[in-house]
Amino acid sequence: MVYGPLIAKPWFIRNNLSMTNTPSQNEAQLKLRRVAIDTYHENVAYLNRKCRLYQAEGFQALSKVMVLANGLRIFAVLNIVDDDNIVMPDELGLAEQAFEQLNMEEGKHICIAHAEPPDSMEAVRRKIAGERLELIDFRAITRDIVENRYSKMEMAAFLVASMHTGLDREEIYSLTQAMTETGEQLKWHAPQVVDKHCIGGIPGNRTSMLIVPIIASHGLLMPKTSSRAITSPSGTADTMAILAEVDLSPERMQKVIEKNGACLTWGGKARLAPADDILISVERPLGIDSEGQMVASILSKKLAAGATHLLIDIPLGPTAKVRHMQEALHLRKLFEYVGDRLGLHLEVIITDGRQPIGRGIGPILEARDVMQVLENLPEAPDDLRQKTLQLAGRILEFDPDVRGGQGYALARDILESGRALQKMHDIITSQGSRGFDFSPAPLTIDILANKTGVVTTINNYQLARIARMAGAPMAKRAGVDLLKKIGDEVEKGAPLYRIYAEFPADFNFSHNLASIDDGYSIGRVEDVTKAHMEF
Amino acid sequence: MVYGPLIAKPWFIRNNLSMTNTPSQNEAQLKLRRVAIDTYHENVAYLNRKCRLYQAEGFQALSKVMVLANGLRIFAVLNIVDDDNIVMPDELGLAEQAFEQLNMEEGKHICIAHAEPPDSMEAVRRKIAGERLELIDFRAITRDIVENRYSKMEMAAFLVASMHTGLDREEIYSLTQAMTETGEQLKWHAPQVVDKHCIGGIPGNRTSMLIVPIIASHGLLMPKTSSRAITSPSGTADTMAILAEVDLSPERMQKVIEKNGACLTWGGKARLAPADDILISVERPLGIDSEGQMVASILSKKLAAGATHLLIDIPLGPTAKVRHMQEALHLRKLFEYVGDRLGLHLEVIITDGRQPIGRGIGPILEARDVMQVLENLPEAPDDLRQKTLQLAGRILEFDPDVRGGQGYALARDILESGRALQKMHDIITSQGSRGFDFSPAPLTIDILANKTGVVTTINNYQLARIARMAGAPMAKRAGVDLLKKIGDEVEKGAPLYRIYAEFPADFNFSHNLASIDDGYSIGRVEDVTKAHMEF
Repeated sequence: MVYGPLIAKPWFIRNNLSMTNTPSQNEAQLKLRRVAIDTYHENVAYLNRKCRLYQAEGFQALSKVMVLANGLRIFAVLNIVDDDNIVMPDELGLAEQAFEQLNMEEGKHICIAHAEPPDSMEAVRRKIAGERLELIDFRAITRDIVENRYSKMEMAAFLVASMHTGLDREEIYSLTQAMTETGEQLKWHAPQVVDKHCIGGIPGNRTSMLIVPIIASHGLLMPKTSSRAITSPSGTADTMAILAEVDLSPERMQKVIEKNGACLTWGGKARLAPADDILISVERPLGIDSEGQMVASILSKKLAAGATHLLIDIPLGPTAKVRHMQEALHLRKLFEYVGDRLGLHLEVIITDGRQPIGRGIGPILEARDVMQVLENLPEAPDDLRQKTLQLAGRILEFDPDVRGGQGYALARDILESGRALQKMHDIITSQGSRGFDFSPAPLTIDILANKTGVVTTINNYQLARIARMAGAPMAKRAGVDLLKKIGDEVEKGAPLYRIYAEFPADFNFSHNLASIDDGYSIGRVEDVTKAHMEF
Repeated sequence: MVYGPLIAKPWFIRNNLSMTNTPSQNEAQLKLRRVAIDTYHENVAYLNRKCRLYQAEGFQALSKVMVLANGLRIFAVLNIVDDDNIVMPDELGLAEQAFEQLNMEEGKHICIAHAEPPDSMEAVRRKIAGERLELIDFRAITRDIVENRYSKMEMAAFLVASMHTGLDREEIYSLTQAMTETGEQLKWHAPQVVDKHCIGGIPGNRTSMLIVPIIASHGLLMPKTSSRAITSPSGTADTMAILAEVDLSPERMQKVIEKNGACLTWGGKARLAPADDILISVERPLGIDSEGQMVASILSKKLAAGATHLLIDIPLGPTAKVRHMQEALHLRKLFEYVGDRLGLHLEVIITDGRQPIGRGIGPILEARDVMQVLENLPEAPDDLRQKTLQLAGRILEFDPDVRGGQGYALARDILESGRALQKMHDIITSQGSRGFDFSPAPLTIDILANKTGVVTTINNYQLARIARMAGAPMAKRAGVDLLKKIGDEVEKGAPLYRIYAEFPADFNFSHNLASIDDGYSIGRVEDVTKAHMEF
């Protein structure tokens, strides 16, 4: 049984009704007030219980209200206030996010109305019932999501429904298309705009910060925007923020790109495929992630950013997001299918995801690794360098002038010549340098090998968790430094990795977690987990 | 791909970790403050952005916090405050609901910690992946829900996952059992405790308020608790609240039952199967409703209330919740299966759900109908009277001393003799009388027939919506009075029903909605929708 909720009761506006006898808006106007509460990704409005114009409780039970002023409207959850210091009976308070969205001065007159449940929930209910959805349905859903008409529980319903029976390839294409359209779309005056994306799950792994200066040195346009960590110990934007400003206005970002042919910024303000950011804020805490949503999420962002050529990195390993070669191949074909439908030149590379890439996990420690590789220092982590060259080489071969198979050598030449380092310094200077202080947090402890042997596995998930508990990414100097990697010989009592923490509570929790499960297995050389090629 | 979220970062408490080096709670104590904001079914905590003890933003991004004091803990969503008037940097504010749950004085010292995602989300993710769940899983889920550990989006994920492939009969039994256990369970010193429940969807239909005094007059124990309307124009508790107090403490309710053998109260405070109330607060706004959830919801509430004998009413009709006989039969068998497993003596009756039952829709108007039937007045709505006698008769036959087939006549005798009316007055007096003023709201308009003929259908959904728009149930005197029912002959221009509203805005909206679609069809006598028996 699936039926529409009987909760529609608009006061002043209803799209599908012809309005006769609409009461004058003067009858029920409130004064706008900013309430200094940060409600994080959810619009909240505050109405005094004694408000004479609206029956506060009747409104509240129905969960969402529409706030109307000068033809503008936003949607918000309603909270009822019993304290006149927060809002007066003739006021409507808006929490910070909602206030910014409405973008009006305090004291201006506004009205509220019961929000209709979003029309597109009808399509979500059809999906719950197992139906296929069409492009027009996905367009309606993403538009309503971007307009903040979906509550978090409505988004959860959409996500769970679309992962349960799953979305078929055509539906994933439609969802990608719809997410791309509902937001800004950048256009570049260049024949090729290249980008790369890793599906995630591997701590460290800061290849983008190395690939971008290599590719830009060669002359391909690579305007790279990245995300901040949501559930990982650091995102590329968090690590880059150690070295340079990453929160740039579109105008400043444009200038950085014009000057350097590239940037390394945070993508959060760009409003590219904004439905994706909103859905992720529900998907991550729920711990659910479907292939379909992942493909649509990644490709819509890249399309909206104007990419024409894209390299996708799928790390494969026993504690990576993708754990079996068959699954990796299925995902690759899905990316290829949707990429082709959208006219995106797309290549997928399946990489070794058995362990963290590089030495550091956490913003400062990862930034240090990146600079060591760019500076060609002997202590630079070799796995990070090798993976960078492998991926950069494939991207360079998108250039018609680069001969097939020559990309790797070309990337290596650019790196070893110091041109990539110079380009990175140029990008940092353009974005706004923040200095190069890589000193880690003061509270440290080494986690020691409990026997002698060879490192056979490293659990990505557990190491990420230990680094997070140590305070990363909020505490920028916190995290974990790996001293041994898979295949290394260790003596009992030798250090495997070092924890860095800023605060005693973080330190204790991280240390406790590592004491219970250090995330390492030590065994015989023949037990070493093989790279994916041999799975 | 389904994997656990990497967001666990507890500060002070973690169930599965042995705690060494736990920092003293003195390190990070805040003072408790009540924030006079009513956040409706969701716990919210407020932390000042300048708080030196906790990194407010790091906490916020992870969505839920645990508030700890004296061994007590509650879970809440965290909002960050930039106004010292709301909370000071050394305070933690709790919204009204959360403050009440913690039940401590303002100014007391408390700590906060990152809340682990509830362990039972792992079972929800298995359900999303299509697995069957066991009793132990449902127990874990309902316990976490009742402890407020689930966010609304996590509940939405559970609900959608369990309606998608559905729950099998055994799972529905397990869910019912688990929901019953997580809450209070009433026990009665009586061999038979009878109850009835209608699955809903039919406006008017206030049979419980008639059945209870009839059954109690006969001497069977019937402690009836009902719900308030969530998305309908009135619930039994809303209508009963016109005549008597319905929000009684358990002690007062007990006294009412001892004196009268029955009560007619609101069930909201009883904490019977509380997981159900919480799930419904997500299910209704989403407009989703699965057979499995419905069966578990109804039976867990009745079991927890101590019922031994239960009559379930499934109205069947083209605009009822159940629209096909096959579906009704399937639902009946499901109720029977789960009822048998739980040792509940259960009967299901499929009733005529083609149109609203009685004349009034809305609290005052329905209360008037009920009293007219009890008083055996000639103007009393006959369909309400007949349905009452039909259901009451079946319940009376639960009594071993009543001969099969004699229930209806016995119920009619009790009603016609005035004993039911006297019993109702006794119950009202015991609960606390509120008087018998049935004068409706002042703004009225008659909706007229647009042609001459016979009423062939009445749309339950549309009439409920018109009554809601008119202000019911918040405006108690508002609603709709039906002047014609299915089968009645009408002249063009004759009134079909009358709308009553308290406020002009409600009046206009209700009137507009009725003008667009009055919910009535008028045609030839042979077009009249047949009752379910002939579907």
